[in-house]
Parts: sequence; C-alpha cells; structure tokens
Amino acid sequence: MKSELSQSKKAIVILGSTGSIGESTLDVVRSNPGRFEVLGLSCNSNIELLANQIKEFSPQTVAVGKGRSEALRSLLGRSSEQPEIIEGDLAAIQLAENPRTSILVAAMVGSVGIRPVMAAIELGKTVALANKEPIVLAGCLITQAAKKYNAPLLPVDSEHNAIFQSLQGSRREDLKKITLTASGGPFRQTPLGDFPKIQLKDALNHPNWEMGSKITIDSATMMNKCLEIIEAKWLFDLAPEQIEVLVHPQSVIHSMVTYNDASTICQMGVPDMKTPIAYCLGYPERIRSGVECMDLAKIRSLTFEKPDPKKFPTLGFAYDVLRIGGGAPAALNGANERLVQLFLKEKISFLTIITLLQRLIDQLKSLHLDGGETTFSFPTELKKIEDSIQADQWGRDFIDLQII
Amino acid sequence: MKSELSQSKKAIVILGSTGSIGESTLDVVRSNPGRFEVLGLSCNSNIELLANQIKEFSPQTVAVGKGRSEALRSLLGRSSEQPEIIEGDLAAIQLAENPRTSILVAAMVGSVGIRPVMAAIELGKTVALANKEPIVLAGCLITQAAKKYNAPLLPVDSEHNAIFQSLQGSRREDLKKITLTASGGPFRQTPLGDFPKIQLKDALNHPNWEMGSKITIDSATMMNKCLEIIEAKWLFDLAPEQIEVLVHPQSVIHSMVTYNDASTICQMGVPDMKTPIAYCLGYPERIRSGVECMDLAKIRSLTFEKPDPKKFPTLGFAYDVLRIGGGAPAALNGANERLVQLFLKEKISFLTIITLLQRLIDQLKSLHLDGGETTFSFPTELKKIEDSIQADQWGRDFIDLQII
Repeated sequence: MKSELSQSKKAIVILGSTGSIGESTLDVVRSNPGRFEVLGLSCNSNIELLANQIKEFSPQTVAVGKGRSEALRSLLGRSSEQPEIIEGDLAAIQLAENPRTSILVAAMVGSVGIRPVMAAIELGKTVALANKEPIVLAGCLITQAAKKYNAPLLPVDSEHNAIFQSLQGSRREDLKKITLTASGGPFRQTPLGDFPKIQLKDALNHPNWEMGSKITIDSATMMNKCLEIIEAKWLFDLAPEQIEVLVHPQSVIHSMVTYNDASTICQMGVPDMKTPIAYCLGYPERIRSGVECMDLAKIRSLTFEKPDPKKFPTLGFAYDVLRIGGGAPAALNGANERLVQLFLKEKISFLTIITLLQRLIDQLKSLHLDGGETTFSFPTELKKIEDSIQADQWGRDFIDLQII
Repeated sequence: MKSELSQSKKAIVILGSTGSIGESTLDVVRSNPGRFEVLGLSCNSNIELLANQIKEFSPQTVAVGKGRSEALRSLLGRSSEQPEIIEGDLAAIQLAENPRTSILVAAMVGSVGIRPVMAAIELGKTVALANKEPIVLAGCLITQAAKKYNAPLLPVDSEHNAIFQSLQGSRREDLKKITLTASGGPFRQTPLGDFPKIQLKDALNHPNWEMGSKITIDSATMMNKCLEIIEAKWLFDLAPEQIEVLVHPQSVIHSMVTYNDASTICQMGVPDMKTPIAYCLGYPERIRSGVECMDLAKIRSLTFEKPDPKKFPTLGFAYDVLRIGGGAPAALNGANERLVQLFLKEKISFLTIITLLQRLIDQLKSLHLDGGETTFSFPTELKKIEDSIQADQWGRDFIDLQII
C-alpha cells in the first residue's frame, strides 16, 4: 500500500504560481521528479512567467486575471499542448474544485484567496495554506469547515509550519504555549524617533527572507506577526494568551512549542520557504526540499529579545481584535492591506500605517463597547464568508475615509 | 480506558535512588502526587539518605550494598512499616524483576547496572535508562533484547531524551543525522598547554549541570560525549557518521535531529534532569516536571562551535571503537571508569586520562588489525552480556598495567 502511495503522483494546483511561494513550490516539484503532477496554475497578471511555467510543467488548466487569457494564448503560440485557460474572479475557484486535485497550494496574496480555499475545503481537499488572509479573515469558519469536511489544512508560513512540525507526535492536552519567532524586520534597531524618516526602499529591504512586497512591508511594521498570531489562534485552536512572540533576528528557529513539562520543541533551518513547502507537499512523508542543511557552528550565535511594544504596537492589535471577535480581525486585515497598497504607491508614510491601524483599533473597541452602533455596517459576528469579506471591506473603507 | 490508565498508579523501581538522578526522579514523583507508587529503591552505601527516602515513599523492597542491611534496619528503627531489605550483588536484579514493576529507572553509576537492566528487559518492562554503561558495553545485545521482549527503552540522558522527543511523530526513513550538543565542560576555553595544570577541583566544577562526580569528570574530558555517541548509535540504530557533536556552552538545546528535507527538530529547556526524567516516567503523556520554563529573552544568546579535536581526542574514540566493534566500546568504558577512579583519588593527572585512553585505542586498533592475538583474552565479538563485562574488565586491566 505504502509503495503504491509513493508511486502514485500527487496532483497539485498552485494558486498564485508566479509569486514567491508559487515559484518555490515549483522548485520543490523540480527537486522531486516523478512525485507530483502539476494539475493547475493560476496568476493574476504575470503571464510571461506563467507561460514559461506552462511550457515546463504542462498543467491541464490555468487561471488568469480578467482579460488576460488572449494575451497568454498568443504567448504560448500554436503548441498542441496548450492548457485550458480560464479567467476572472471565479477561475481560481474553478481550479480549486478540479476533481483530480489532491493538494491545493493557496499562495495568492491578500484576501482574494478566501473563496477558492473554502471551495477546496468543502470538497475535502488538502490545502497547503501560504495565503494567511483566509484564516485571518474567517479563521473560525475555515477551521470549522476543515473539520466538518475532513480537509487537512497544512500551514506553509514558516512559523506555523514549525509549530505544526513541533506538534507532531504529541498530545494536544500537553501543550502549554507556542512562541512565534520574528526576525524583527529591517527596523528592529531603528530608534522610534527615526521612524518618520523611513523610506519605501528601507521597508522593502528585509534582512533574512526574500518575499513578496506586501509581506515584506508587513514584516517591517510587524503586522505580519500580528496576522500570524491571529492565524495561529485558529490553526492550532489556542487561547490568545497561549501565543507569544519572540524576536530572533537570525530567523533560524522558525517557532517553538512549549509543553506543560517545560520542554520546548522547535523546528530550525536556514530561512528558505522551500522547507515548509516541501513539508506540506510531502506530508506525512518528508521529501526533498532542495535546501541546504544549516550549519550552527558557522552561524555561531542565535539571539533573542522581547519585541518593543512602543515601536511595534501592531503585535498588541492581534490580541485586541481577537478579544473583540466577529469581523474585527478581518477589518484589521482589510485596513492593513489598503495601507500597504498606499505605502507601496508612496502615498502615505511608514508611520501612517501604524497610526491609522491604531485609530482603527480604537474605533473597533468603541464599536465593541457601544454594541455596534455605527454608520458602517460592521459585522460583529461571522456567520458566513461574506460577513468576513464585508468586515475586511469595512476596514478598507475606514482607511479611505481617514486619508481623504 | 484513558482515564482508567491515568488513575492507576505506575509502580516504579529506582536503582541508584540516592544519586543525583535518583533524587531527581523522586522529585518528579513528588511533583505528581497520586500518579506513581515507589515500589523499590536501591543504593550502594548512602543508607542515611535511603532511610529518609523509605520514610517518605514507603517502598515494598529496598536493595543495599553487601553488608549494609543491618545498619539500614537500625536506622529505620522499630517502625512496623519497614520494607523488605535485600543486599548484595543480586539484590538490584531481584528488585528489577519484581513482577509489579512497571518502570525500572536505571540510575546506577557505571557498568554494575548492566545485569539488572537486562533482567528487566527480559521481562518486557519499561526501562528508563540513565545509566549509560549498559548500552555502551552491550548496546547490540541490549537493543536486540528490548526488541525481542518488547521492552520500551526510554533514554533519560538529556541528549538522548531530546533526540527521542525530536523523533516523535516522524518516519524513521526521513532521518538524516542527529547532533548531540555538548556544553564543552569546564575546559572548553582552557588552552591545551594548560591541561597539565588541571586540578581535580577544576574538573569537578561543571558550568551547567549538577551531576555525580564520575559523569562530571567525563564531561571535563568529553568522554561523556564519546560514550553518548556510542549510546546514540545503539539507541537510535544509526551509522556512526550520522552522529555529530556540537559544542553549545549554554546547554539549552539538548540535542537535535535533522531530516532529509533539511528541517531540524530539537528539544530545549533549562538544564535540569527532572525534564527528561518526567518525560520518561510519563511517556507517552507529559507530566509535571517541576522545572521552570526557559526564558530565551533572558538568556539572550545561544552559541555554537565545533569541538576541538586536539584538546578532546576522546570524541574520536567513539568512532574508533564503533569501527573496531565487538568488545572495544566496553574496553574503552572500563578503561575510562578505572582512570576516573584513579583521578578522583588524585593518583593520576587529568591529562593522563586522555593519554592512556589514546594508548588503549592504539592497542585495540592493533588487536583489530592483527586479528586478536594478545596475552589478554579480548572478546572481538559479543555473544552474551558476560563477553561485554569481560571486555570492560580487559580495559580496566589494561590501565592497571600502564599505571604500575
């Protein structure tokens, strides 16, 4: 049985195949010839790269952003091996629902991933989740559905993947707390007084990880870690006070689990997303990641420090929105996505991201206390995915009103 | 079923209850009231402490060194609750064989533990092994027997316990290598040129761990790590080249497992033997260890360096004796035990321990090459426990002949 399983190829669909995680996923596929079939790929706009991926991996179907399919067809030329090309908002969902999909790698950026992820879960498919917004927006609904439809949710995020690995073979009731490590981003050592001078190019210069621009800015504000706290709460069914953040500038220890006997188990390695991706693609087997083993004698020193709450109040926002509940995490996410868009276009300063998020939190707290009286229709309870999307939009609108 | 298991007490027998591990084991029992029954205790000579342990834990049977039972009886007085007291070489074996024993904690010092450990294994009992010599002397025989009699062997040594924890929930075929961490002992930063000046009190001053005198000297020569390599080879069925040693002066990471995907899993915590002891006593559940959680933000930095083979050729001896095979590991162990005895009595210098072990290794290599021609009867193959004890004695005799 086992050797049969090993011999049959796993059919994977990658949503967001031209992004950083998508590319790394295809690298892992390259490192394990004969083990995977690339069934479907999707991207929004980078159709040149997608065309190259199609030529190399021959997917059955690809999904592209609205109005891009013609351009892709002409890029591919008159090859007889052209895949089925679908486009628009529903294309990614259609890809996720392919009956032959065994793993969906959700590597889209932002909240657009939520519907295809939910679609795959409802069909009981294994979801390797790199796109953290579905869990941040609707963690309760997603994890309930995963349980109901028996769909394994495998975290790709290096921190959550490390937690997932460190939980293997242990009893859930023995868990005391988890510690998410954080590189501290590019401004770990920048004095708060210098924050007003931060430029876009400084914020895009992450010390350890090569990632997309959205997540790189989130690392600089530590909103990334804030979203990860929310994600961890849902993925691992934790109380917020069971989740700690520790700054570890070398990003070698990717996160830790502490048990009731004071033992801590952690997963380590060089910071390369191919390791957690390979773990998800092969799970429960370990497959080749194409990553070099770390050499601690060369690294020499791993350091740790508490995060500075004055510089990075963003971490506290996670606990705030989890306490408020309902659509609050989604609203925070939407607001942050909007702010990062504006910052990437150099329309607002770095510090404005943090200031306006703080204002949003204050507003959410007052809504919470007032029992929901507001000119916006803010969902205080999430009953369906649409409620979380509405809350996310509420966060975006809140920011737009502040900026005008 | 589970709650029944949790409610029924585990009956434990502790061989070497007055030593450092024995005392820590009883601390763990104290931290978990209602979970354990202390069925038997043994010690060689510290009957005052044993008498106190008897008063607190009311064991059914205790074993003491030859000629000590009368003194113990008078220490205990005319209490009606006196345990059965047995003495002499076979007493510990008798204790291990008690039909009600569910876990044997083997915490004797040196090779005397080998027979009681084997006796417990042959009865299929769970053995928590703190006493490393049984595995060093006769790893092949002990692990074969453990398999045959279905007796779980749980390693108490902090390094092997960390490996054992880091292997939970993983597939054996995914394992690439293990890394045993080493504090480096008190002479990590002592230049080789100063080794001739090392005094007994310097060698007894371990930076991190409070342990018995034998193991503390072994840490100073790094023979402790040499024996741990041999132990790991057998406990985890590894090729010697899959075992690495890394100096980590803070002793916070207790050891690591690296998998084929370049992921490393490790177990960490404050250096306190109560953590691995609690893991063994509770396994597969985690129980209270009474140990504080580590605080990496306070520790601030974990450092790593390669061991210095010029100062500590002892590490290489592990690979030498594993290559030679047969009784070679036992001979090395016997020789080392003899040398530590002599050093503790200040009859030889610190450097003499290393020099004479090197001479033994050279002798074993020549025996190996010559096919076993020697005036000693050295067992080149281990067929039974007695062969390993004979090889151990060969090592002791070899040293005595050098010293005269």
